[in-house]
Amino acid sequence: MSEAIPLWSASSVAASPPEPLDSWMPRIMERTERALERCLPGVEAVPATLHEAMRYATLGGGKRLRALLCHAAGELVDADPAVLDGAASAIEMIHAYSLVHDDLPAMDNDLLRRGQPTVHVRYGEAVAILVGDGLQAQAFVVIGSLAAPAAQRVSLLQELAHASSSLGLVGGQAIDLASVGVALPREELERMHRMKTGALLRAAVFMGAHCGSTPLDTGLRLALDEYQRSVGLAFQVVDDVLDVTTDAATLGKTPGKDAQDHKPTYVSLLGLDASRALAEQLCERARAAVAPLGARAAHLDALADMVVHRVR
Amino acid sequence: MSEAIPLWSASSVAASPPEPLDSWMPRIMERTERALERCLPGVEAVPATLHEAMRYATLGGGKRLRALLCHAAGELVDADPAVLDGAASAIEMIHAYSLVHDDLPAMDNDLLRRGQPTVHVRYGEAVAILVGDGLQAQAFVVIGSLAAPAAQRVSLLQELAHASSSLGLVGGQAIDLASVGVALPREELERMHRMKTGALLRAAVFMGAHCGSTPLDTGLRLALDEYQRSVGLAFQVVDDVLDVTTDAATLGKTPGKDAQDHKPTYVSLLGLDASRALAEQLCERARAAVAPLGARAAHLDALADMVVHRVR
Repeated sequence: MSEAIPLWSASSVAASPPEPLDSWMPRIMERTERALERCLPGVEAVPATLHEAMRYATLGGGKRLRALLCHAAGELVDADPAVLDGAASAIEMIHAYSLVHDDLPAMDNDLLRRGQPTVHVRYGEAVAILVGDGLQAQAFVVIGSLAAPAAQRVSLLQELAHASSSLGLVGGQAIDLASVGVALPREELERMHRMKTGALLRAAVFMGAHCGSTPLDTGLRLALDEYQRSVGLAFQVVDDVLDVTTDAATLGKTPGKDAQDHKPTYVSLLGLDASRALAEQLCERARAAVAPLGARAAHLDALADMVVHRVR
Repeated sequence: MSEAIPLWSASSVAASPPEPLDSWMPRIMERTERALERCLPGVEAVPATLHEAMRYATLGGGKRLRALLCHAAGELVDADPAVLDGAASAIEMIHAYSLVHDDLPAMDNDLLRRGQPTVHVRYGEAVAILVGDGLQAQAFVVIGSLAAPAAQRVSLLQELAHASSSLGLVGGQAIDLASVGVALPREELERMHRMKTGALLRAAVFMGAHCGSTPLDTGLRLALDEYQRSVGLAFQVVDDVLDVTTDAATLGKTPGKDAQDHKPTYVSLLGLDASRALAEQLCERARAAVAPLGARAAHLDALADMVVHRVR
């Protein structure tokens, strides 16, 4: 991290050194998994197959990047970890639902996800549609039932609903589908990704910050905005790089699909080397945005690094 | 209506006589249409086709029964009509999304809805999936942005999310799909309909009542619960009757589909005459439940009657 310029009084900075990422990350992933298990209807609830499929789509896999971002941002504001668990689960449910629907035959027609058959392959198309629909609703059930003040729940609702809307991830997927075989200019490609993946990553960061007991001040809001914008874009650039450089076993999904589907990517637009350089640049920008927040931002800093240097 | 037993003080009963249904109903339908137009993203917003299709799926048709129930219940508690407009729009968006997804080829494969080509026929399957996803998210955007206290927005969120979940309409549709060709016992058929259509009708009634400035008292809650249960079931019984007695032009959708798909219905279970008698009985039960609420419940009373005696 670069030098820490204190924007807040020294007393508000956590005294104990931050937990190292290699113990923090698995710990947060594990508690997210347990929170999701609690937040999803059990298989004993009718209809059993639907609930089994909703759990199949959501549990036991994934990078949990959105949950990690939510928790890391929550550390900036001393958020209640139990509230962060709920918020993170809701975000991961929206993410999981979007993958289930994106994988459908009428959409990207993907057969493999997180190294497993996709939901429609395993349970059929009708169930897969309903799994996505049910997961989206369940995310909002979770927000509604958080043990947090009503005003905080409304802030979380607003962030999550907007990110999930046709002005967020659903709109991004629509643009993505419509851009098959189209030479999108870089500006349009960025807009598509800002909506398709960026909106939910943004929500993850801001929802974590909303889990604190006070409304966000302008300084923190601006820092997080710069951070999420850079990390969101870096995430997509790296995705495009991995799509052409990594095998299916490592990736856990079918690689090379974008090129095969004639979809625009950063690699097709800028080339491999320039894409990698862009990702590094965005990583530095994200880290610089949160550096002034001091040690409390250590996990946000480390996550920016992880997003760019991941192998899947 | 039967005699009014005052459960509340006379002062809380509206002094002016209730607006007759034949002017109230078109007025509420018209203001719901305008509210939906305001609450949906415009076609000038990117992606334009998605927003056009979301508007196609939602605007310009439908019985608006859920919006009417919401407004009618709101009259019991002197709710702000502007807040009712938002709540009613959110409910109608969830209803519209559920129809779009239910009509998909992988689900009921319906070609006609409200007398028009279904969304997937007109815009393709991928767009239809995204229209549903975007409408569901937009319903929660609307709840989050209502000009109402946070606690009220949270109550509305809880009702709507639960009704939309896998324990509500999504679960009901899953049971419906799984019951093709299966001789469901009457109890199971009722559970399916309580989830598939009943949950959202219930939410419409309770969300209207939540739009008042005070939490619901037990007496009102019990009356509304009995009302929504009877109206919800009556709605479905009448749907099954109309499905075998009405032509496509009147119905606005393909009739006889249930029998053709070997789906259990009240008519197949009880016969036509007994189904009609059951609907009348449920209508009386619903009207009796709200009769003690006096003149403020006049529109809820009239809507129960309308549900049972509608021709489409």
